[in-house]
Amino acid sequence: MTSAELSDNIISKQSFLCIGLDTDLEKVPEHLLEDDDPLFAFNKAIIDATHHLCVAYKPNTAFYEVYGAKGWESLQKTAAYIKEVDPSIFTIADAKRGDIGNTSGRYAKAFFESMDFDAVTVAPYMGRDSIEPFLNYSDKFTILLALTSNPGAFDFQTKDLETQALFKEVLRISRTYKNEQNLMYVIGATKAEYLAEVRKIVPDHFLLVPGVGAQGGSLSDVCQYGMNAKIGLLVNSSRGIIYASTGTDFAEAAASKAAEMQKQMAEELQRVS
Amino acid sequence: MTSAELSDNIISKQSFLCIGLDTDLEKVPEHLLEDDDPLFAFNKAIIDATHHLCVAYKPNTAFYEVYGAKGWESLQKTAAYIKEVDPSIFTIADAKRGDIGNTSGRYAKAFFESMDFDAVTVAPYMGRDSIEPFLNYSDKFTILLALTSNPGAFDFQTKDLETQALFKEVLRISRTYKNEQNLMYVIGATKAEYLAEVRKIVPDHFLLVPGVGAQGGSLSDVCQYGMNAKIGLLVNSSRGIIYASTGTDFAEAAASKAAEMQKQMAEELQRVS
Repeated sequence: MTSAELSDNIISKQSFLCIGLDTDLEKVPEHLLEDDDPLFAFNKAIIDATHHLCVAYKPNTAFYEVYGAKGWESLQKTAAYIKEVDPSIFTIADAKRGDIGNTSGRYAKAFFESMDFDAVTVAPYMGRDSIEPFLNYSDKFTILLALTSNPGAFDFQTKDLETQALFKEVLRISRTYKNEQNLMYVIGATKAEYLAEVRKIVPDHFLLVPGVGAQGGSLSDVCQYGMNAKIGLLVNSSRGIIYASTGTDFAEAAASKAAEMQKQMAEELQRVS
Repeated sequence: MTSAELSDNIISKQSFLCIGLDTDLEKVPEHLLEDDDPLFAFNKAIIDATHHLCVAYKPNTAFYEVYGAKGWESLQKTAAYIKEVDPSIFTIADAKRGDIGNTSGRYAKAFFESMDFDAVTVAPYMGRDSIEPFLNYSDKFTILLALTSNPGAFDFQTKDLETQALFKEVLRISRTYKNEQNLMYVIGATKAEYLAEVRKIVPDHFLLVPGVGAQGGSLSDVCQYGMNAKIGLLVNSSRGIIYASTGTDFAEAAASKAAEMQKQMAEELQRVS
């Protein structure tokens, strides 16, 4: 998928919602636990109920790995099912990988070839040769952690280098990498005031924004400071949507939460169009 | 395993060798490809041939994930087999994980509980709450990327913050985390001159050192600048050992390469004892 196609999908669905599939067996409705593959059964129901309201899904690999090989199978089935239901959905493996070149190449193959994800999240700490093996896939996107939404973001990311804050250096230097047009960046919504500064360095790239809602970020602030002419935003919500109810109505409750966010997004999109 | 027990194993085996199991089906001897689980068959033969020469094994998760659920099974079997053959071996999941708190908690559970690894490698970019869920396991070790051995290490890690280089800030700040005594650090051997500076900040912790041999690092430099009273070093070699031969004699060839390194290590240990 190209970023122009992603922008078109956003306009046509009037939504830049990404739904995080942080699926946890301790939180799924009890009646699903009898299923052969409760992780996938839960995801399938959420996807069926919400795919018309969002443009992206983001399974978080930790929640699958914790169940070993069986969890990995659920992840593979989920990735395939999303594309089966709606091939226009952008799929993100939230994996936070990153290692020396030949190892990153293996991770890229796992997520881009074996599971055909459109994008994967990557930690920048190890620098260029840890990131370019992902960028070598010119039809895929590499989403670099820049400024995350958790408290620990202030341990290192916002520290000043001699020139500027580390996360800005990550933005600046990553733009010199091969196929940099296939980069996206994670920018936490809890720091909307930083978004204007982010846009000075990466005006055209898509930003994946966690932290709206539960973590206190405001959607309208994110749009005010982060939106560009191609929209350029994917706003993620995980627990706020998929665990809206823990009863048998979990899928409808998720759809209703997603619809609420989609409606707010449609209003923001009207404002800029 | 405690770090005192690890030091004892090093003294008794006269080796601080860690063997990296970056097992690649494109590189294993052809006759193994007919096995039901060639990844595990290869690892088993390498482990059988080398476990008396090393104190640690380090499977690199990327090389298993690329084969999906089946690869994940090979990883689980490998982790279990190492402990079966020699319970004193220190096992490291080289996974480079790190995410917001509840997600890191899931990764910790995957590697420390489901697979019972002794340690996991973690990227520090997301800060305290991404690392402490690993450190919450007080009988396990968290190996933080500090100064890695790849070219991209110079993109960010060696950049000066207003106070000092980023990797030194990672060392300094991580020492304020809960259970910091369970931290180890990745310090690339290709930068042995940095090891003396590293030791000023973390005199007592174990260092996991990649980059000796193939990548140009010198074992004697590493020992000179990095060894402490409890040894405090695990020196890793992956491809240099496990792919010493691609024929049917691969396991003996691996043992012979490992024995060579063990002998050099014994000499270094004599020098300080």
